[in-house]
Amino acid sequence: MTDQMQRIALAGRPSGAPQPEHFSFETVEVPTPGPGQILVRNHYMSLDPYMRGRMDDGKSYAAPVPIGGTMEGGGVGEVIASNSEAFKPGDIAFGMFGWATHAVADAQMCRKINPDHGPITASLGVLGMPGFTGWYGLMEYGRPKAGETLVVAAATGPVGSMVGQVAKSLGLKTIGIAGGPDKCKMAVETFGFDVCLDHRAYDDAKSMRAAIKEAAGGGVDIYFENVGGKVLEAVMPLMKPHGRIPICGMISWYNDGGLGAGASSKLSAPAMWRTILVNFLSVNGFIISNHWNDFPKFLGEIGPKVASGDIKVVEDIAEGLENAPKAFMGLLEGKNVGKQIVKVI
Amino acid sequence: MTDQMQRIALAGRPSGAPQPEHFSFETVEVPTPGPGQILVRNHYMSLDPYMRGRMDDGKSYAAPVPIGGTMEGGGVGEVIASNSEAFKPGDIAFGMFGWATHAVADAQMCRKINPDHGPITASLGVLGMPGFTGWYGLMEYGRPKAGETLVVAAATGPVGSMVGQVAKSLGLKTIGIAGGPDKCKMAVETFGFDVCLDHRAYDDAKSMRAAIKEAAGGGVDIYFENVGGKVLEAVMPLMKPHGRIPICGMISWYNDGGLGAGASSKLSAPAMWRTILVNFLSVNGFIISNHWNDFPKFLGEIGPKVASGDIKVVEDIAEGLENAPKAFMGLLEGKNVGKQIVKVI
Repeated sequence: MTDQMQRIALAGRPSGAPQPEHFSFETVEVPTPGPGQILVRNHYMSLDPYMRGRMDDGKSYAAPVPIGGTMEGGGVGEVIASNSEAFKPGDIAFGMFGWATHAVADAQMCRKINPDHGPITASLGVLGMPGFTGWYGLMEYGRPKAGETLVVAAATGPVGSMVGQVAKSLGLKTIGIAGGPDKCKMAVETFGFDVCLDHRAYDDAKSMRAAIKEAAGGGVDIYFENVGGKVLEAVMPLMKPHGRIPICGMISWYNDGGLGAGASSKLSAPAMWRTILVNFLSVNGFIISNHWNDFPKFLGEIGPKVASGDIKVVEDIAEGLENAPKAFMGLLEGKNVGKQIVKVI
Repeated sequence: MTDQMQRIALAGRPSGAPQPEHFSFETVEVPTPGPGQILVRNHYMSLDPYMRGRMDDGKSYAAPVPIGGTMEGGGVGEVIASNSEAFKPGDIAFGMFGWATHAVADAQMCRKINPDHGPITASLGVLGMPGFTGWYGLMEYGRPKAGETLVVAAATGPVGSMVGQVAKSLGLKTIGIAGGPDKCKMAVETFGFDVCLDHRAYDDAKSMRAAIKEAAGGGVDIYFENVGGKVLEAVMPLMKPHGRIPICGMISWYNDGGLGAGASSKLSAPAMWRTILVNFLSVNGFIISNHWNDFPKFLGEIGPKVASGDIKVVEDIAEGLENAPKAFMGLLEGKNVGKQIVKVI
């Protein structure tokens, strides 16, 4: 008798916010690892905004998940069979295991996690893709300098909280933006932001802009872009000369029907282009998977700070694979507090 | 009796394309140079697209020309009085002399031109601000690599022709865009572009995009942005991963009422932002006046190539200061062929 496993497949492509019917929970046979592969029992999986992009079939930086395919995502779990010398059963591995209880993966695409170095969930957040995204984007494209002012939204999320904490440690004034008073409190008290503004408290970009301007005491040198929408519209006119905008995402627009010409925004393209020109801005889009060569440097620099508690970690853990779609839909609405993870089994 | 001079002042702020009534031709007294200043008889003055921006009073990278103030601009002429050791009467100087027959300027803000090194008009174009803009933007923000594909509009203008020629010399495929078959012929035959497309031949951005795509034989690595509008809309979806967009101007939008939310464009800001993200684009606005430290390097590299004829020069010289407004209005409509200059007196 073959063992069975559960997975969540993409059942349809949403045109706006994903709904439960876009996901199907399925029981299938556990696959057998081929040469150089490992079989992993997935303990924790990551939920991240980029996954919304994989549900569309437009041109993006990665291929879409096919209809009927397992939803993509990073996970961490125990190796239960290995055809690779790099892993033995009992090892803890991180890899792109998908929304599933079990997965077969090429060993060389996986990373061994040392459970003595802290909770293994860190490999999904603060010491994984999101934390690395925040650190890399800030350091490489943000080029932070002491005394400058930085704005980042989703300030209590795994990207925003990394950006804020690293920037603060380098002597920048950090202005976070988050949804609701509780998250704002956490941004300041846990993650050390100088100020955190509740985007729900502002009816429009204009009033948010006034609040950011007051908090900044002038303009903004670095806007770390992970949300787009109203926050971008608020910040853009506040950018100081020679400002930098690393772009790693734009979650507020992900449910907006593919970000085509109809995507809702009061921003005009010419006005944005002009702002880039007249303020000599440097705008850089990036996807962290192009930069894994720098991952050891990131781990070497940030790992000890996580261990020492200088970099704080907040996780939001949903229980059970079957609850992943609901947690993901909540993530896109900002309902999570901290890094969203699913305890698979 | 005090000597008299002529100047052209800003008589009003245009809301769209400048009209003759926005300029006033005036006779005033020749000013007396103060300590450290020189008095110059302006022989040739430059007309450049950026001057349109100075006629508006919106926030830009430079202060607007005040109503009643002399229109701003670079010029080259003979020093007729000097209170500076750096210049003596008879020297040829470049400086921001404005739209005027005479000007007083701080000697330290002027540059001595050696007339033995070629026509002094070169200091207004190929070896002046526009040529330097093209070279610097391409080298610093375009980061050209042999085998890549570059697109630049206004291909026979002093910026575009520099960009195209330098890129070609570095082994790039160069696609120019210009207005009309004569300019396209010149772009290819004089400036060595591999291809030049006539933007007037395309009804919309979509058809222009198809032509650029065919000429590129794939995507575009560098789009040197000096026009905005339809060309930007055509090129943006063709940008290759890791593409670069240096932005030095956007002439097609200058007459568009300040580039506010109402500026005409079918580009949506979210779509542009997404293109930057998913293609990992690097977009940099710049104004060349922040980079004069690199001017000697530019002169050292490009000066000999102009002297040897490896870099070609085409100038369009209007006669008489009084014709400057007409020539300027023509420039904004692309009526000039090559670098627009006015022979002042």
